[in-house]
Amino acid sequence: MAAVGILDVDLCGPSIPRMLSVGKPEVHQCDSGWVPVYADPQQQQQLALMSIAFLLEDSDEAVIWRGPKKTALIGQFVSDVAWGELDILLVDTPPGTSDEHLAVLENLRKHRVDGAVLVTTPQAVSTGDVRREITFCKKTNLKILGIVENMSGFVCPHCSECSNIFSKGGGEELAKLTGSAFLGSVPLDPLLTESLEEGRDFLQAFPESSTFTAISHIANTLLNSLNA
Amino acid sequence: MAAVGILDVDLCGPSIPRMLSVGKPEVHQCDSGWVPVYADPQQQQQLALMSIAFLLEDSDEAVIWRGPKKTALIGQFVSDVAWGELDILLVDTPPGTSDEHLAVLENLRKHRVDGAVLVTTPQAVSTGDVRREITFCKKTNLKILGIVENMSGFVCPHCSECSNIFSKGGGEELAKLTGSAFLGSVPLDPLLTESLEEGRDFLQAFPESSTFTAISHIANTLLNSLNA
Repeated sequence: MAAVGILDVDLCGPSIPRMLSVGKPEVHQCDSGWVPVYADPQQQQQLALMSIAFLLEDSDEAVIWRGPKKTALIGQFVSDVAWGELDILLVDTPPGTSDEHLAVLENLRKHRVDGAVLVTTPQAVSTGDVRREITFCKKTNLKILGIVENMSGFVCPHCSECSNIFSKGGGEELAKLTGSAFLGSVPLDPLLTESLEEGRDFLQAFPESSTFTAISHIANTLLNSLNA
Repeated sequence: MAAVGILDVDLCGPSIPRMLSVGKPEVHQCDSGWVPVYADPQQQQQLALMSIAFLLEDSDEAVIWRGPKKTALIGQFVSDVAWGELDILLVDTPPGTSDEHLAVLENLRKHRVDGAVLVTTPQAVSTGDVRREITFCKKTNLKILGIVENMSGFVCPHCSECSNIFSKGGGEELAKLTGSAFLGSVPLDPLLTESLEEGRDFLQAFPESSTFTAISHIANTLLNSLNA
């Protein structure tokens, strides 16, 4: 099993700790820096996590920080966390092309950066934002690993009919238009939302669901492209 | 009819121009500053709009700006736009509690600021973010006008059954918990999404829909509280 780190740089809206159900543990110091939080200690520390949520006294605390302070903390998250030997470091950014994104890139320059996975919904208001993120990647020489379409169609649990609540196909179209790989779509699924709310492992709980198949497909496509 | 201005300060993801279908007009200068774009010129210039989208050469252009540059532009948007006599100025911010939010507040201090409308989805990951925004409002002495719950339930157009795709009731619960007014819920409605995609006026096109009723209720509750 790969050793994976997740770095949550959404400083104003850190949501990964809740989704991984790690609570609010205290972050400790060791000789080589802050010790990350392990999402599942039984799994022999294979999933390390760092988020500003662990550093706040109170989970309602607002991070009223301007860019330079955000940039400094992100630098520490990359350099001063005792990540150990990782096979993969996944960085979750907020939307946009601003301080957080520049800070991550600057601090990871000395490491090998595989590239960016861009997530959109099918709507034009969302693909428009991601088009600007594609421009950002090109300007900063960041390889685009592929595009994922989220909130992609809803299959009614009562009648099994599909509704395209947020339009349809925007992610795939964007990938074609910009010559990027299309990694796949994640449907709107109340069971997925519920699992993320409660920090339950969706993939373990619903291995038979079509959403499981969709997410596995994305993960495999991405991993294959990295190993190619 | 009230004269309304909309200031879009989501500098990395400006979506209001598309939603109001104003295209990408050139912004002109007059003696008192930049002339805002009018969303419906036939309506005697009652809806003025300013967005960074009007200032970009190309709509795919990425705004790769750090905080100080964002702060400077927002200052200009407040002071150097010839808004004229407005009854209401609505400022649409990105999520969070950072440069954009501080810049808006600082530049509007000399005007009377009525307060903030906070928008959440029903999920705990979203209400968590809004709880931090409530802390921001308290710390900056910004009155909270109320909370709106968006993406609140989906009524299947095929079988009329309701699915709570993103959980249920989180907005109202948050309002109760924090002693804020609950302004109402906006359901997930493919017709609303489609209208926003195409820049069609949803309220004119679907006056009989339950989403129309929901939106009107929110607007009236908010206006009544402002006039109280």
